[in-house]
Amino acid sequence: MSNATRAVVTRILGLDPGLRITGFGLIDQLGSQLRYVASGCIKTRDGELPGRLKTLLDGVREVIATYQPDVVVVEKVFVNVNPQSTLLLGQARGAVICGAVSCDLPVAEYTALQVKQSVVGYGKAHKEQVQHMVQRLLTLDASPSSDAADALACAICHAHGTQGLGSMDGIGTRRRAGRILG
Amino acid sequence: MSNATRAVVTRILGLDPGLRITGFGLIDQLGSQLRYVASGCIKTRDGELPGRLKTLLDGVREVIATYQPDVVVVEKVFVNVNPQSTLLLGQARGAVICGAVSCDLPVAEYTALQVKQSVVGYGKAHKEQVQHMVQRLLTLDASPSSDAADALACAICHAHGTQGLGSMDGIGTRRRAGRILG
Repeated sequence: MSNATRAVVTRILGLDPGLRITGFGLIDQLGSQLRYVASGCIKTRDGELPGRLKTLLDGVREVIATYQPDVVVVEKVFVNVNPQSTLLLGQARGAVICGAVSCDLPVAEYTALQVKQSVVGYGKAHKEQVQHMVQRLLTLDASPSSDAADALACAICHAHGTQGLGSMDGIGTRRRAGRILG
Repeated sequence: MSNATRAVVTRILGLDPGLRITGFGLIDQLGSQLRYVASGCIKTRDGELPGRLKTLLDGVREVIATYQPDVVVVEKVFVNVNPQSTLLLGQARGAVICGAVSCDLPVAEYTALQVKQSVVGYGKAHKEQVQHMVQRLLTLDASPSSDAADALACAICHAHGTQGLGSMDGIGTRRRAGRILG
């Protein structure tokens, strides 16, 4: 009975990578229904880079061990104007993805534009609009923090893509691991 | 007997991170003596980023499992003029460092300038000079490949730093995990 239920529920872990703060958010998808599971942040302290990357790697692995998602969705980060910041962000994103792939989970990637388009219906939506729509779509009592909201938005974007909603290309998205194309 | 010998030998793994090719090189340091152990490359195929990062993560972990180094040394990558390349390189470097920290090994970092200064005595040395000096310092029969040479050069740089050679600041380097400062 439990297995039969589990078979149609997909648990999605959304991650919004950052060296200082990586947001995470989990939802369960049952057809067109979305249910909030958990969300929060993995924070790293100032210090040597390898130690901070280890905190991110271990943090993601701990979230996965605790909540047992079926798929991980990671936001594609913006390329920063400052090359050094871009490099640091890239390393953080590398560590976050390693957390997922080291648990043998599939990883889907979406740009912030795709996520906002899917959740708010407008690619240039403000953070507040994303928080508002995440709260509404998941029928939460309160607005999640900005980092958690972005991570939950990633998870929602993936759910919309795999059920053929949220994109004009919805029907075709299954062919590329659930990504919303274009 | 075996333990007593092992106590004074430090095995150093040098890594030269890249998304397509990550070079690795291992040396044993016994006082001022350096001995070549092994070197090679971890290569990733074209494809989705998460899979490529997994190849790097697993590759580094496999090298560590095989050769059991005491410390890992990673070259600080150049910030590329192309932000997208910088981001990709950052993610590769993040995965490579995660391979080391997930095995609970200490990680030291040096810039290419520090590595060349330590190995060739000139921070702007060409690749061929690095290969030549690596071959000479490790008394190898043949010149190692460019990627392997850079990784071995990282390991040599660390060895020089921890024995107080290769830098005017040598004596003080122990206080910061063997890094050559300045």
